[in-house]
Amino acid sequence: MKKAEDFSEWYNEIVERASLTDKRYPVKGMNVWTPYGWKIMRAIDACIREELDATGHDEVCFPLLIPEDQFAKEKEHIKGFDEEVFWVTHAGLTPLDVKLLLRPTSETAMYPIFSLWVRSHADLPMKTYQIVNTFRYETKQTRAFIRVREIHFFESHTCHVDYEDAERQVRQDYEMLSRLARKWCLPYLLLKRTEWDKFPGAVYTVGIDTVLPHGKTLQLGSIHQYRDNFSKPYDIKYEGNDGEHRHVHQTTFGMSERLIGAIVAIHGDDKGLVLPPDVASIQVVVVPVLAKGATDTVSKSARELTSELESAGIRVHIDERDIRPGAKYYDWELKGVPLRLEIGMKDIEKGVVTLVRRHCTEKTLVDRKGIADAIRGVLEEIAADLLADASAAMNANTVTVDSLEDLPDKLIKTGWCGSEECGHRIEDLSERDMIGTPIADEGYKGMCVVCGKPTTTPVFIAKAM
Amino acid sequence: MKKAEDFSEWYNEIVERASLTDKRYPVKGMNVWTPYGWKIMRAIDACIREELDATGHDEVCFPLLIPEDQFAKEKEHIKGFDEEVFWVTHAGLTPLDVKLLLRPTSETAMYPIFSLWVRSHADLPMKTYQIVNTFRYETKQTRAFIRVREIHFFESHTCHVDYEDAERQVRQDYEMLSRLARKWCLPYLLLKRTEWDKFPGAVYTVGIDTVLPHGKTLQLGSIHQYRDNFSKPYDIKYEGNDGEHRHVHQTTFGMSERLIGAIVAIHGDDKGLVLPPDVASIQVVVVPVLAKGATDTVSKSARELTSELESAGIRVHIDERDIRPGAKYYDWELKGVPLRLEIGMKDIEKGVVTLVRRHCTEKTLVDRKGIADAIRGVLEEIAADLLADASAAMNANTVTVDSLEDLPDKLIKTGWCGSEECGHRIEDLSERDMIGTPIADEGYKGMCVVCGKPTTTPVFIAKAM
Repeated sequence: MKKAEDFSEWYNEIVERASLTDKRYPVKGMNVWTPYGWKIMRAIDACIREELDATGHDEVCFPLLIPEDQFAKEKEHIKGFDEEVFWVTHAGLTPLDVKLLLRPTSETAMYPIFSLWVRSHADLPMKTYQIVNTFRYETKQTRAFIRVREIHFFESHTCHVDYEDAERQVRQDYEMLSRLARKWCLPYLLLKRTEWDKFPGAVYTVGIDTVLPHGKTLQLGSIHQYRDNFSKPYDIKYEGNDGEHRHVHQTTFGMSERLIGAIVAIHGDDKGLVLPPDVASIQVVVVPVLAKGATDTVSKSARELTSELESAGIRVHIDERDIRPGAKYYDWELKGVPLRLEIGMKDIEKGVVTLVRRHCTEKTLVDRKGIADAIRGVLEEIAADLLADASAAMNANTVTVDSLEDLPDKLIKTGWCGSEECGHRIEDLSERDMIGTPIADEGYKGMCVVCGKPTTTPVFIAKAM
Repeated sequence: MKKAEDFSEWYNEIVERASLTDKRYPVKGMNVWTPYGWKIMRAIDACIREELDATGHDEVCFPLLIPEDQFAKEKEHIKGFDEEVFWVTHAGLTPLDVKLLLRPTSETAMYPIFSLWVRSHADLPMKTYQIVNTFRYETKQTRAFIRVREIHFFESHTCHVDYEDAERQVRQDYEMLSRLARKWCLPYLLLKRTEWDKFPGAVYTVGIDTVLPHGKTLQLGSIHQYRDNFSKPYDIKYEGNDGEHRHVHQTTFGMSERLIGAIVAIHGDDKGLVLPPDVASIQVVVVPVLAKGATDTVSKSARELTSELESAGIRVHIDERDIRPGAKYYDWELKGVPLRLEIGMKDIEKGVVTLVRRHCTEKTLVDRKGIADAIRGVLEEIAADLLADASAAMNANTVTVDSLEDLPDKLIKTGWCGSEECGHRIEDLSERDMIGTPIADEGYKGMCVVCGKPTTTPVFIAKAM
């Protein structure tokens, strides 16, 4: 299956052929994390933990099951999730007095406890996160990593003295995201969702969206400003310096296993996955190219090379299977290992190693001496290349229009006056979703594509995955 | 509350006072992992991952929800769990066609997929594990870490060509356990459960039990030999060298958050927790003892000390809060930090640092020069002391008897002929559970405490937590 011909089929096939997931589990939308897929997810989680720990967030873990009465406290929130939660109604043979639901997200599990944890201004800001499984009863067609019913994700939840401090947190989230996305080589847009599309209970929602090769957008996560919409029903208050009790202001930030979906979709090619070095469980594979009579020398040299890279902190694997080198190349290309080192008798004699980059199959020679530093540099170059290529592709997949006729299968930018009426009309006419407006002023000048009013607000519309 | 006076109350109080858990979540037996408790659990998980990865196990992650029909395939297994699982019956407002249960353990989630993963003898042994949350509807009184309804645990699942290879795995599990328990400073017994107490579906079950200070036993985990009891109903077969298809033989090994319960219960004292260095998220706390006029010198010196230890890979924290040193000592003793370093003007002048061990409050001086190596040595000594103390306590809490009258509140060892009839009689007469027989031949010679027949098999009976 060719990526350019049928992206969707290519994606479904590649995640299985590369052993990222097993979709044969007998519950729809609940897939098995294979050893390889789970290693990549854990590498992503490690990036997230590093970033959240460094910015003063404490990792916690709240119960999975939420009692119905706690869930119902914030009215908008329950309306938003009513039809997509799984309900536990029985324990053993006994019906439960209070039904329990599997968390679709943890506001309603955490906030009753936050109201006990937050006492005074000295407790604030209180910044927590957890990395857990979450559940949504998706009725649309499921797709590995992208639309599943058991979702691996992280969610950070913060409490602040006031709206302004919560806003500072949102800006810190943007900075964290920028560093993380660079590691994952993923370009993205930060788009403020429309009023009718924001998270149930939020004052505003900023979606983190990327564009896939076939022009549809994929939401990777979101950042929400809650103000005191949750702290009031859940009674999360602090005593200020002045002895007054006030409700905290809250934010959340979350991203899911969709990150793997985006990495596969954006970087992969017809030969298989292409993994960013920070995410790859194997960053470098060493393939000894054995020749008759020199087997021992080459093996020894390849092993020394491997352990030298290992000591330098590079995630390296040596492939000593008794099969042709070509078959090995095929396997590791499918698995997306960013860099392959070939070492044969000729290389040894010349004091070099042959490097093959996965994403462009460029072949270069590097000196055997001081190779660890060289490899580290190459891995950084690869990451920069992947991000540059992906950013260029996203730009190429974005067009600005001033009419909604004959729209291409791309991310569309156009003018919008900001009224809900014109917004819905744009969605109807374009047969697309309005995914939001950029968070920063871009100096845009145009006209609402429906009513013709001058506007400084562009809006993005797209077919969303 | 004094540990010696009311162990049970002391335990309940200490886990909350030390902020290991929050029991105020509104579902019984489902507690919140606080930042401090979760750090300790993650340190334990890290030990487990290191051990399992090093012995060739692949980490995976299977779905939480198991369809009723898959669960029912092994008849003994479902009988054993029927009354203690949580059932998901609805998704949104829709009743599910096939009910789903929350995994109490993952045999029935994994084995339908194992039957797809295992093809030939070249795939064997297949060794996997996962670290996940699991659910049991406990009807007995709940207790933090020890008896909860959402349980954090690891489970390894292995497939082998035959019974003998599965037996080799069981022996490897014993070795892994021995290394792990040394890190956690936990003494334990390996006891083969009676036929009527083994895991539903197992050929035999070896319980991993420890003895708590009040003489009750706590099961930390278990190791099971399944032979082909599961591979037959789940059809897990491989093609041998000879072209024949055979069912695999399977084992499992698992331990839960009870490990934290045991660490708290066994090592803690009236001042709080006492954490083994390998488990402590803070291994060393540095407390600057400031004197008038020398504040800057002491602070500077304390910070240098801290960063030197940090660079040496020691998990160190400097407490620079503006409160009395005594108040700091109190806090860190409650939190169980294994080693405290005090540094004041006098220490600096003498070129020393004052060391205070948490478990014995012994005070010693060490040279400031080369301190990182010295501290590493002291942490190892502390771990050895903790294990030695705990082992001595377990021995003191174990008695061998030849009559079941006036039994003390301890772990009891006595003779048993091996018959089920005498077994049940021993349980009735002693008002205790028979927790099993030692896995190794101890050269025991005695008589069945009921029928008087000579026997070489001792049996352990106890009140189990």
